[in-house]
This record gives sequence, structure tokens and C-alpha cells, in this order.
Amino acid sequence: MTLSTKLMIYGQAVDSRLLIGSALYPSPEIMKQAILASGAKVVTLSLKRQNPAQQSGAKIWQYIQDLVKETQGFLLPNTAGCKTAKEAVTLAKMSREIFQTDWIKLEVIGDDYNLQPDPIELLKASEQLLNEGFKVLPYCTDDLVVCQRLYDLGCQVIMPWASPIGTGKGLMNPYNLATIRSRLPDVTLILDAGIGKPSDACLAMEMGYDAVLLNSAIALADNPMLMAKAFAQAIVAGEQGYMAGVMQQRQTAHPSTPTLETPFWHQ
Amino acid sequence: MTLSTKLMIYGQAVDSRLLIGSALYPSPEIMKQAILASGAKVVTLSLKRQNPAQQSGAKIWQYIQDLVKETQGFLLPNTAGCKTAKEAVTLAKMSREIFQTDWIKLEVIGDDYNLQPDPIELLKASEQLLNEGFKVLPYCTDDLVVCQRLYDLGCQVIMPWASPIGTGKGLMNPYNLATIRSRLPDVTLILDAGIGKPSDACLAMEMGYDAVLLNSAIALADNPMLMAKAFAQAIVAGEQGYMAGVMQQRQTAHPSTPTLETPFWHQ
Amino acid sequence: MTLSTKLMIYGQAVDSRLLIGSALYPSPEIMKQAILASGAKVVTLSLKRQNPAQQSGAKIWQYIQDLVKETQGFLLPNTAGCKTAKEAVTLAKMSREIFQTDWIKLEVIGDDYNLQPDPIELLKASEQLLNEGFKVLPYCTDDLVVCQRLYDLGCQVIMPWASPIGTGKGLMNPYNLATIRSRLPDVTLILDAGIGKPSDACLAMEMGYDAVLLNSAIALADNPMLMAKAFAQAIVAGEQGYMAGVMQQRQTAHPSTPTLETPFWHQ
Amino acid sequence: MTLSTKLMIYGQAVDSRLLIGSALYPSPEIMKQAILASGAKVVTLSLKRQNPAQQSGAKIWQYIQDLVKETQGFLLPNTAGCKTAKEAVTLAKMSREIFQTDWIKLEVIGDDYNLQPDPIELLKASEQLLNEGFKVLPYCTDDLVVCQRLYDLGCQVIMPWASPIGTGKGLMNPYNLATIRSRLPDVTLILDAGIGKPSDACLAMEMGYDAVLLNSAIALADNPMLMAKAFAQAIVAGEQGYMAGVMQQRQTAHPSTPTLETPFWHQ
Repeated sequence: MTLSTKLMIYGQAVDSRLLIGSALYPSPEIMKQAILASGAKVVTLSLKRQNPAQQSGAKIWQYIQDLVKETQGFLLPNTAGCKTAKEAVTLAKMSREIFQTDWIKLEVIGDDYNLQPDPIELLKASEQLLNEGFKVLPYCTDDLVVCQRLYDLGCQVIMPWASPIGTGKGLMNPYNLATIRSRLPDVTLILDAGIGKPSDACLAMEMGYDAVLLNSAIALADNPMLMAKAFAQAIVAGEQGYMAGVMQQRQTAHPSTPTLETPFWHQ
Repeated sequence: MTLSTKLMIYGQAVDSRLLIGSALYPSPEIMKQAILASGAKVVTLSLKRQNPAQQSGAKIWQYIQDLVKETQGFLLPNTAGCKTAKEAVTLAKMSREIFQTDWIKLEVIGDDYNLQPDPIELLKASEQLLNEGFKVLPYCTDDLVVCQRLYDLGCQVIMPWASPIGTGKGLMNPYNLATIRSRLPDVTLILDAGIGKPSDACLAMEMGYDAVLLNSAIALADNPMLMAKAFAQAIVAGEQGYMAGVMQQRQTAHPSTPTLETPFWHQ
Repeated sequence: MTLSTKLMIYGQAVDSRLLIGSALYPSPEIMKQAILASGAKVVTLSLKRQNPAQQSGAKIWQYIQDLVKETQGFLLPNTAGCKTAKEAVTLAKMSREIFQTDWIKLEVIGDDYNLQPDPIELLKASEQLLNEGFKVLPYCTDDLVVCQRLYDLGCQVIMPWASPIGTGKGLMNPYNLATIRSRLPDVTLILDAGIGKPSDACLAMEMGYDAVLLNSAIALADNPMLMAKAFAQAIVAGEQGYMAGVMQQRQTAHPSTPTLETPFWHQ
Repeated sequence: MTLSTKLMIYGQAVDSRLLIGSALYPSPEIMKQAILASGAKVVTLSLKRQNPAQQSGAKIWQYIQDLVKETQGFLLPNTAGCKTAKEAVTLAKMSREIFQTDWIKLEVIGDDYNLQPDPIELLKASEQLLNEGFKVLPYCTDDLVVCQRLYDLGCQVIMPWASPIGTGKGLMNPYNLATIRSRLPDVTLILDAGIGKPSDACLAMEMGYDAVLLNSAIALADNPMLMAKAFAQAIVAGEQGYMAGVMQQRQTAHPSTPTLETPFWHQ
């Protein structure tokens, strides 16, 4: 995380370090209120939601687009549900045309059960889309070498998972996530998928991640609006915690109250 | 945590769920700025800091008292460093006289290395002090039975540890801490000691704790003022997260983007 | 753990570091086979199992006693279910008379739900029973100060929990358990309650614990006899691991295959 | 893990579920004694250890080969240190010629610091070597999709990491490792790299892994021979634990001693 600047997505400064999804809410109105409450400026959505022949999704797309316009934010189409590079590339192109943006959250799923990214197809699709001028935000696992290769291809943003989509398990492998951060200091790292609680998001930011993308944790909360606020604050707290420099853990106790006669300011 | 109310300490509503210590800061001025930035309304301090014969601590006490007055907050004297009930009771009485408050953070240390509370002496001292009209805030480990006994004695506030003082290890035993919360729904629970990062504080609040007390994590940060703000926000985030209802963890992935043709609002 | 010697219980050398319970098995015959397979030399049992008026437990007691005799082992009566020192002392005395042993596994439960020990009543009962010549093996939580006090009273064996009885959660708080080991090097430490898997028992032994006591993990396995063997070997493995000196963890990778030209024996 | 059979490596039954490395020991003699004590039947070694021009490694290779013959075991050459598929394939072919075996532990490192496998190059090299008749044992991370692809290529053995080589951190991501086991029930899964303690190996086996490969944890122990025995037993314990059926964890305590009057065998 570059301390002094805003979240940067391919050169575009973004005013919030929380990116939010637009699915699974109890109603469109609740989605809208939750997104507004979150302060998020980037909203993901999926073309797959609709059968193009029937245009059944058009109404909700318009709703989301209006909402994003209202926030002066950015639409981030995704390729959720795609299983091959080819499929993802096709969907990305349709999304660019329909949503008028070259940003694409690239998902290429390699497993039907844990919905994890397929690193091979992901790299393939990333390369093609970058070559065609897309600004690719790839969703990947916490594999350093895959992240490095995405970076080498030209991805300026990389989005490793915390845990499988929708599980709310939080950061399964903090060691891997910290390694990616330290080895790729210049890339914008957005933790994506598996976040369940505001403290998970806070922890990611304390580790130096640039932002957090989530959906279920807000959409499935009892009170999505309030949870959206909670995440917004947890992310700011984590960012400030990172910038303020977290204390070192100690193995043994250390009194916070000085012993008698110890000069006060030099305990 | 009672959702709709403020933090209650023996009937006194308090405007912040962060309680803060006054030791270990680089300078008095930094301490002051950090405490102000934290928004904390309760500041702990220790009579032990001074040799009464020399009155060397008087100046800093006055400084802290003025600061607390400025915040319209509350002084919370502690008995840090005491090893027996007798010693702690004596110090509590001195503190009441000097600081003009019947609030006492009761610490009776049973081990020199991990500075953990001695449950036996703690119960003894709590009983005596409650009988003498003190409002006792006992610092204890995460032992449910000891907490239950403190509650039975009349403690309206109980402060289990997260981990040993000054270690920054965070919540060592979330299972125990969650058990205490669920079994003692009516007591004000303040997580005390061992908190290292804003996400630790956030997590405690998500578990339904009423407040968090800390010192080292702010005082030893590279930038105590900024870290104070980070904790303040993390605590609000955790409180809101608790109130908003955290989603259930799932064992397997669940798509946040619906499959084609699934009616949008009923995925 | 004293490396060169056998498990010592109040001066009595014991040939196995696994202590086993006698409840919850599918049948007496399976219990017998499991205990024999475990190689355990100490078997716990409870007088509470029976209504003395009806002598309904006598048959099973005799069965267990015969079994223990067959293994040239030791009976360890427990005070499971007692909630006060008085109750536990009374039951201990009855047990001594009936089972003809001054060994007593002292349980004084302070909470009906997590069945955790009540430290206050436990200390009280321990003191009384030690004074009356019992060899007390107290079941306690992982509270260092309570363990220290039990030791100061004269307990030569102390049995902290891993997690609540019957949960199979394993070692909830390794930090506390390691602290107890390092601060009480001379006491025989037996990890008791909450062990679920052979690897849990192995880990306890690697930390320098002297032995492990369990029941549910064997009795509730699909195949108790095989699980008994598994635990027996896991405990020996952990003991040997402790004695052999576990390698230090490293934060970064280190090749186990040397680079070209590095002298082989000094990589 | 197929319960009733031995470890199978491409149709070859192997008498031990511990595979061992031949580097980092204090001396050749200690290596020999440790390997014999471990009961391992598969010993890894690296051609890279030597500068072919100087033949400096020939002596130690002969030593290891004699040792493996003595145990009636198998040599498993590895491609440690290779960074590209091409390099690994070349080294694998040299190894096949020199060591007279078509088994190859395939390592293609993608990062100099955490020495983690490069999934892309690994897949490429696996395909080539399988096509040339090798029996490939690929070392990979805990990425399900990469494992699935290795399996689809024809790998009958797959070796995910526990954590980076030589760190001794144990199983960093049990969720991923368990997912791989459940989704690839027919492949021989050998946990490789990062194991530090016998309990780590025991845990892997309890999860249904077929075997464990390690080096540092034995070679760097204070007493490698004793540690080798410890691991051998821990692995058998874990295997038996898996076969015996580990009890389910419970969230709340459950008495192992029945209440009064409860019929004994139906508590």
C-alpha cells in the first residue's frame, strides 16, 4: 500500500478502499441503501445474470448503473461463472460494450465446488484481455508465482482470495497473503472473496493490502446497511493501523504500568 | 452487549467503547494527543508510578487529570503491580482518596513473568472493595468460573484478558471469550490486555464485548495518534458488525453471482 | 518431562504415558479390548456411576478392577460430577475405601455447560485431601496461577485441560499450556480433557507434557481398539519428538537440497 | 487413502508411508542411521548436488544408493533447484540415466525466496516427462485446480506442500489440503515440505493423506535418529487414527462420566 495516495486502479484514483458486489441482497432497494452506506465507489456486476435473448437483466443493470452514477463511482463488470479463458474473454468483450468500461474483474473458475480460480486459464485470459486494451483485475488464489506472472503480464491490480467465495472464512492463509504483499510492493492488491467479518477486512488492510472486495458479508447480514458502514470503518481503521505501524508481538508479558521509581518517560 | 445503549459502567453511561492507558508513551504531549485522538472517555493510571515520599508522580497525575477533565471523561485508577489482595485494597483506598473516584481497575498479579491475575486474591480483593463501596472493574483471565464468581460478588463490569499484558498477541482463546459472553449476558465485558492490532479490537466487539481497554498497542505504535484513531474506528466497526449480524460461515463456496436465469432477488 | 524416566505419579513409575477413561464405550467388551490395545496402565472410573443403594455399578467396577489387575496397572477413581469441595472430598473418601487406592482424580465442576473446573473449590478440596493422605491429581484449566497454587499445596501431578470435556477441540490455548510447562518444570503435567485426535496428543507430548488422559476420543471412535493403538503410538512419537529436539520454525524457505558446489556436509 | 493397502506409487507397493530426504544431515553416517531408523523405503536425492565435471557428488550418491539397496527401498531423484520446465526435464533425464529409475520428484521453483513451485512450468514439465515414460511425483502448492490438472495429465502421485521448504511451519492451510483430499480420492497424495514436528505428520495422515515426505525436520533435529523414529510412529498413529474414524468435534462439553443411574452402556 502506498501510504499517501488513494487506491489506484490503473491510474484512476478511487475514493474508497472498499469495493462491493451487487448480488444476493434481499431487494434492489436494500442493495442501493447498503452500497450508499458503504461509501464504495466501485460496484461489481455480472452480465451472466441475464439471458441476453430475454433482456431480463437489463432493468437491474440500469438500476446499478444509475446508482454508480449517483456515487460518482465506477462499474466493474465481472466474468463470474466462466470456466475457460475463451468464455471469459467473450463475456469481457460483451461487458465492455454494454457497460462502456474497459475495467474487468476477471474470474475463470476451475472448480465447481470451491469456485476457485483456474490459474492457467486466468493467465491466458489476462494476457488476451490486456492485449486488447482491457484493464484487468484478476481474481486468483494466494499463489505468489501466479500473482507474479499476472504482474509480469501487465496487471496493475491483482485480487487474491481470502478463502472460497461466500464462505465467510476470512483469511485462511495469512502467511501467503503477507508474502504476496512483500514480494509485489508495487501492485495494487485487493483482497477478494471469503471475507466474513469487518475484522477480516481490517486485518487485510493492516497487512498492507490496498483494498478489499466483498459481497456476501454485507448482502447476507441481518442489517446490510449497518454492516456496510461497519466494513467501511473497519477498512479505514486497518489502513490507519498499517500506516501507524502496528507494535511488535512479544512472547512474554510486559507491564504497561512502570515500576516504582522508573523515570516515567523512559520505562 | 446491549445493542441500543452506551457502554455502562456501574450505571454511568460512557460515550466511547475504548478505554485507554496512560503509560509507555514517548512523551506526555504525545500521550495527550493520542488520548484525545482516541476519543476515549476513560483513562487508566496507576498510583504505583510514584514514590509517595518524593511526590515525583504528582505532576503527571495532574496532567492526566486535567486531560480527563478536558474530555469530560473518567479517571480509572488501577492497582497494577499489586501481588496480594491486601496490597491491592490498600492501594485502591489510596487511589480513591487521591483521585476522588470510587472506580478501581483491580489488578492482583499472580505471576511475575506473564503478569497474569491471581484469581484467588482477585476474588478476595473484589469482595472487600465492593463491600467498601468501590465500583470494581476486575482484570482476570478468560476463566468462566472466576468471571461467574466475580459477577456473583456484585461486579457489574468484568475485564478478561485477550493475552498477557503487553504481548500484543490478540485473542488467544476466542472459544473461552465467547463462552463468557454467552454465559454472562448481563455483565459489562471489557476485553483487557494483549490487544495488538485494531482488528483484534474489532473482533472482540463483533463477539459482543462491550468495550476494549488497551495501552501498549497505541503507546508503542510508530504513530500513536493515528493508531488511536484506528482503534477508535475499529471498535465502532466491530460494534456495528455485531449489531448488523455477521453472516454464518459456510464450509463450501457459494457464488455471489447468481446463475443464469435465476430470479434475481431469490438466488 | 524428565527425559530419561518413566511417567511418575507420586513416586510410582508408570509404564505408559497414556491414561484412559472407562466410560462411553459401546460395550464392556469393547472397552476392555480398547484399554488393552492402548497399553494404558492407569484407568479412571467414577463412583458416581452408581446408586450405592442399588449396587448397580458394582458389576462394572469389578469388571474394570479385574481388567486393571490384568494389565498390572492402577485404578484412578475420579470425582466427576461433583460441584463443591465438600461433595468431592466425600466422594474421594468413599472411592478410597471401595477401590482401595489413595489416588484420586479430583474434578470439581464449576459450570454445568462447559464442565470446567471451579478453581476455588478445587484448591479447597485439594488441600483437604492432601492433608488426609490422598495422592491428588487435580483437573484444572490452563491457568498458570491456579497450577502454581496446586503445586504449592503439594500436588505432584497437575492435569490442565486442552479444551472442555468431550469436545474433541484439542489444544485451545497452546501458549498457556507451554507457559505452565516452562514455569513448573518439576511437576508431572498430564493434559486432560478435550483431546480429539492422535495428533493432539502428539503435540502435547512434543511440548514436554508428561502424559495425556483421554476417554471420548477413543470410546467414540468408529473403531475404539484401533484408535487406542493410534493414540498409544502418537504419544510415544510426541515423547520421542520432544526428546529429539524439534527444529526451529523459520519464516522463510530454506532449501533442503544444497546448491551446486556447496560442500555436502556443511550446507 | 485406500485403507486396506500399502502406499502405492505408480503401481509399486511401498512398505512405509514416510519418504525421506538425504540432505542437511550432520554427517553421512548420521544420515544413514536416521534413514534406517525412519523405516523409510523411499529416499530422495538430487543430481544438482554435484558439478558433473568434477564428479564430486559421485561418492555420496553411491553411499545413498547402497543404503537404499540395504533397505530394499527406492531411490527418488528430484529436480530441486530447477526454475524452468526445460531445465527440470533435462535434469530428470540425466537422473534417470545415472540412477536407473524412471521415478522423478519434480520440482520447478518459481520463487527464489519461498522456493514455491511454479504451477505453469510444473504442468509443462509433468506433461513432457509423463510422455517420455517417467513416473512423475510433482511437488506443488495446495491449489486444487493445479492438482486436478496434474491428475488429468496422468500423475498418479501428487505432492502438495504443507508450507515452504525448510520452514517447519506445518500445515498452513488445512482447509485447502482437506479439499484436495476429498476432491481427488483416487490419487496418491503425499504431503511434502514444511513439516516441522511429528504431530504435523500425524495430522496429515489423519486427514487421509497417503504419505509424508520430509527432510529438514529429521536432519536438523538435535537427535536425527530419534526424531526419525518419532516421525515413523507419528505417521502410523495418524494412519490408524484415520482408519479408526476420528470423533466429531462438539461445540459444548459432554461428560465422559455418566450421570447417576444412567444405564451404563447407553449414556
